[in-house]
Amino acid sequence: MYAHTLIGQLVVALSLTAAVPTDGLAQSDIVSRYRNAADRIIAAAVADSSAYERLAELGDRFGHRFSGSESLERAIDWMLERMKEDGLDNVRGEPVMVPRWIRGRESAELVEPRPLALPMLGLGRSIGTPPGGITAEVLVVASFAELSERAEEARGKIVLFNAPFTSYGATVRYRSRGADAASSAGAVAALIRSVTPYSQQTPHTGAMGYGDSVPRIPIAAITVEHAEMLHRMQRRGERVVVRLTMEARDEDDVESRNVVAELRGTELPDEYVVMGGHIDSWDVGQGMMDDAGGVVAAWEAIRLLKALGLRPRRTIRAVGWTNEENGLRGGTGYRDAHVDELDRTVLAIESDGGVFKPAGFGFSGSDAAFAIAQEVGRLLDGIGAGRINRGGGGADIDPIMREGVPGMGLDVDESRLFWYHHTDADTIDKLDPHDVALCVATMAVMAYVVADLPEALPRAGR
Amino acid sequence: MYAHTLIGQLVVALSLTAAVPTDGLAQSDIVSRYRNAADRIIAAAVADSSAYERLAELGDRFGHRFSGSESLERAIDWMLERMKEDGLDNVRGEPVMVPRWIRGRESAELVEPRPLALPMLGLGRSIGTPPGGITAEVLVVASFAELSERAEEARGKIVLFNAPFTSYGATVRYRSRGADAASSAGAVAALIRSVTPYSQQTPHTGAMGYGDSVPRIPIAAITVEHAEMLHRMQRRGERVVVRLTMEARDEDDVESRNVVAELRGTELPDEYVVMGGHIDSWDVGQGMMDDAGGVVAAWEAIRLLKALGLRPRRTIRAVGWTNEENGLRGGTGYRDAHVDELDRTVLAIESDGGVFKPAGFGFSGSDAAFAIAQEVGRLLDGIGAGRINRGGGGADIDPIMREGVPGMGLDVDESRLFWYHHTDADTIDKLDPHDVALCVATMAVMAYVVADLPEALPRAGR
Repeated sequence: MYAHTLIGQLVVALSLTAAVPTDGLAQSDIVSRYRNAADRIIAAAVADSSAYERLAELGDRFGHRFSGSESLERAIDWMLERMKEDGLDNVRGEPVMVPRWIRGRESAELVEPRPLALPMLGLGRSIGTPPGGITAEVLVVASFAELSERAEEARGKIVLFNAPFTSYGATVRYRSRGADAASSAGAVAALIRSVTPYSQQTPHTGAMGYGDSVPRIPIAAITVEHAEMLHRMQRRGERVVVRLTMEARDEDDVESRNVVAELRGTELPDEYVVMGGHIDSWDVGQGMMDDAGGVVAAWEAIRLLKALGLRPRRTIRAVGWTNEENGLRGGTGYRDAHVDELDRTVLAIESDGGVFKPAGFGFSGSDAAFAIAQEVGRLLDGIGAGRINRGGGGADIDPIMREGVPGMGLDVDESRLFWYHHTDADTIDKLDPHDVALCVATMAVMAYVVADLPEALPRAGR
Repeated sequence: MYAHTLIGQLVVALSLTAAVPTDGLAQSDIVSRYRNAADRIIAAAVADSSAYERLAELGDRFGHRFSGSESLERAIDWMLERMKEDGLDNVRGEPVMVPRWIRGRESAELVEPRPLALPMLGLGRSIGTPPGGITAEVLVVASFAELSERAEEARGKIVLFNAPFTSYGATVRYRSRGADAASSAGAVAALIRSVTPYSQQTPHTGAMGYGDSVPRIPIAAITVEHAEMLHRMQRRGERVVVRLTMEARDEDDVESRNVVAELRGTELPDEYVVMGGHIDSWDVGQGMMDDAGGVVAAWEAIRLLKALGLRPRRTIRAVGWTNEENGLRGGTGYRDAHVDELDRTVLAIESDGGVFKPAGFGFSGSDAAFAIAQEVGRLLDGIGAGRINRGGGGADIDPIMREGVPGMGLDVDESRLFWYHHTDADTIDKLDPHDVALCVATMAVMAYVVADLPEALPRAGR
């Protein structure tokens, strides 16, 4: 109560003017009240590399964990078992039906001007080709705008979008909507340049979608190297012909599970801080940064708090959502299963950008809650992870954020994330054990303090 | 004669003491005499991207160019034809017999603890496996020293050398000698971690060799990611089993050619500056930095000099040596075919480190010649390419350097060379058109000035 009153004063002060000094009593109260606990958490997290080792074991033992695959369910079994061994509370898998897209065999070959196998990955949810594949001349365009201008040339061809990477958000549009755009112009299939700023002949998969207005055509990603090469060949006036063969198909939904484990709260166990990432991955690599890292960091965070005897007032629930990549059924399923708790869910935290060196969080919620989050961030300044920005969340927590739950996304050094994203190179060796430990510390401190504050994080309009 | 006298004085001064000022008349004479020509060469080289475009066309049209392959010979035909179109002198292919190693189909699969295809490349010259492959438990070691300590565990196994990259020279020993070392301990096959500081599931091939003291066993490179994973599995006490299947075999030598084109000298056409790189590559990627770049830069250099009307006293001969990668027959064949000219070959320049941003040259020869080369370097300081270090050359020019020809190797920013070296990612997009143009300028200025100096570069002991 004491803290609450002071925080209330702070929030009023902050909302009156940004020029008001921000080192008032309320702030120093959060910082001084939790400094010792935060420092203990940080020291314990960085003292070993157990999060990294668990992540490595998960990746090595099960590989990628695609929705509908046996490896995903076996990884979930393993995680639930280990969580029970850790003595966590209410460990369980919560059933969710997930889509099952099968890649099948697939290939792309340059036929003209010279035969060459093109490393490729079909895009998730794409349809397949007829059994003999589709062999057609290629029209290379650099953008949707260029396709519009050259639409008449696209009929009966394979359209290749060779769009250079700018940002993920800007460039991923070709992955999401390339098939329909090409189909609109009469193309028989589509290819994209992999969505990445860097390539070593590395194809990147990812989700695509079809609308209802044009015929569905198959779509796949080739490498940056080959997209550029085909473009150069076209500029030289050479006829470029590719054979694309994909067995891709949808099968019936199957059951998967959200992984849940808790550190039950002491005074308000029915109020929650929900924290995690997604346990599924694409069907390539080890899925160590997309995601697994977020799940393991959340799991390790509550294990660490338990080991330190730091049990907060509210419950911290670590969640590994399933099927983020190609359906978001884990996130929507969680919302549906926990709809009665959402008023009592004070914060949701997601990590889905890789457990690289943490910088802080992006926050979505009320101004008052943002001010508190910034205060908690001060406890993380010592490890460089205290920066709280406006805006943030995650695909898995988005469904509950839409119901009013304040949300946070872990911000990390993403400078190389898209080098590996959705590829065979998303493997444990790209991560640093100390950085992973810092992610555990960052998530643990934020979750612990918010779960322990005398009052729930204030929501907008309350 | 004038310049020669002054250079002679300089050389005497330099050899007396390093403390003697080095800005004497002779130096300023080289710089002042050739400044205008050097600036014209540089300006012309960077005015377009024709070297880059020729390199790209070579790579796109023919792909990799392995000794004994049709693509190598077709690339040579194309280059000779273009050189003739450029109006260069004495364009010709000089026949050389080269080894023909056939990779054939090959694969590596993790069998235990879980099935997984391991991207791999057999090492050049390796023998193959029996048709059904070799399936055996794996012993992972980090070094030759560890293998010695654990030699008794290696019998009947596949030894994997998971040696982290330090320098190329230090780490490539596992590629060169890993098979024999493993065989000495009774292993049935060997694997290495690819020789690279960076990987995106990228296997690197390269030459290996057998001695005569132990049975020959097959050897291949797997990726850094998987070498690390197998090592972790072993540390966890898991049994690791791999199936290695390789059809690799040697066939009879076949004829290839060194590519030669000249800019004939005005006064001393029978004296030579020889300059180039190797036209062959490994059987992966496009071989744009290893090498092709050196050949195209030398070719473009003499084309540019011709276009500028800068014909030096001596002949500049651009050479594309064949079979550097797995035999060095181009370099030894050149020496044998030109043995009578070596006394009149004043300098040999090789580029085989990729046509990245040039920094200067490494030089091997007399102190007097080194002092002159440093002077010429001053003409390249304006583009940051004037640094002349002691020591340098190249694998293809090594045979003639051993006969007394002064040698130079182009030094470039090699920071990413070994990311791509001997992989499918050695492609044109990794190079920058401006950097390639600067390499052309750097090689053209050095070759032109040395070929035009009144006196030949002084050799040691003369």
